[in-house]
Amino acid sequence: MNSLQDALVHELKDLYSAETQLTKALPKMIKKANDEELRSALEQHLEETENQVERLKEALDHLEENTGRKKCEAMSGLIEEGEELMKEETTDEVHDALLIAAGQKVEHYEIASYGTAMAWCNVLGLNEVADLLEASLEEEKAADKKLTEIAARINKQVQPA
Amino acid sequence: MNSLQDALVHELKDLYSAETQLTKALPKMIKKANDEELRSALEQHLEETENQVERLKEALDHLEENTGRKKCEAMSGLIEEGEELMKEETTDEVHDALLIAAGQKVEHYEIASYGTAMAWCNVLGLNEVADLLEASLEEEKAADKKLTEIAARINKQVQPA
Repeated sequence: MNSLQDALVHELKDLYSAETQLTKALPKMIKKANDEELRSALEQHLEETENQVERLKEALDHLEENTGRKKCEAMSGLIEEGEELMKEETTDEVHDALLIAAGQKVEHYEIASYGTAMAWCNVLGLNEVADLLEASLEEEKAADKKLTEIAARINKQVQPA
Repeated sequence: MNSLQDALVHELKDLYSAETQLTKALPKMIKKANDEELRSALEQHLEETENQVERLKEALDHLEENTGRKKCEAMSGLIEEGEELMKEETTDEVHDALLIAAGQKVEHYEIASYGTAMAWCNVLGLNEVADLLEASLEEEKAADKKLTEIAARINKQVQPA
């Protein structure tokens, strides 16, 4: 990895793997969500995630790189932890609270990654790639905010122990 | 996991494992940082992380729970990815840019986790625990912001490919 552009390519391939994994995990999360607004927010985010995969392809294409085969182990760990939590026997509300917690960890991983990649694009003068990443970053931030709002409503319905 | 309080205890044990792992990873990151301001920011964050471990012990103690033995696999994956990147042969500036990228992913994992745990404390009326978590959350956000500032300066010194 000789240059910041190499680092950027590495980060974009990592994000490509992360988002691709997420397109497979989100349908399972949607099935397991009890709250209707939560389910619809996750459905919207699945559509966004599919677009984000395409944007990453486009970004890598712009840099004359392919999407690579390296698996993002961090996203893999985050998804696995979430799936473990979903197996817990609990009330509908606590189940959804756990699902949202897992989802927000995923969102924050992506917010950090897109933020870094965008900063590097700006240094490298790669404005077109930066624009693609910014569109996805804004979607991730909005998805995280939406989950916080839904959690606030669901948490109010939870009975203390 | 029958109640939101059970979910909270699980999250606090996960954070305890995450922060404990980080107290071991940060000294290695400090040694590998080239930039002086970056090294000093990481040193400050190591001290904060040690305090955060104590706060989590205190929070679990307040809930009459021990710290548990469950390993946070997500943090483990994040640290491993960071350590892999640190092995890359590259320039001092790109090396530091990669180190910061790894650090910000770690910070964002913690921001998401403390944010969730604090929201649950507020629902459960656990104000003392919420105060402990808020102190750590603010430190994590400040650390993330500081890393963004240092990255902006270091990135300017990087030579495009």
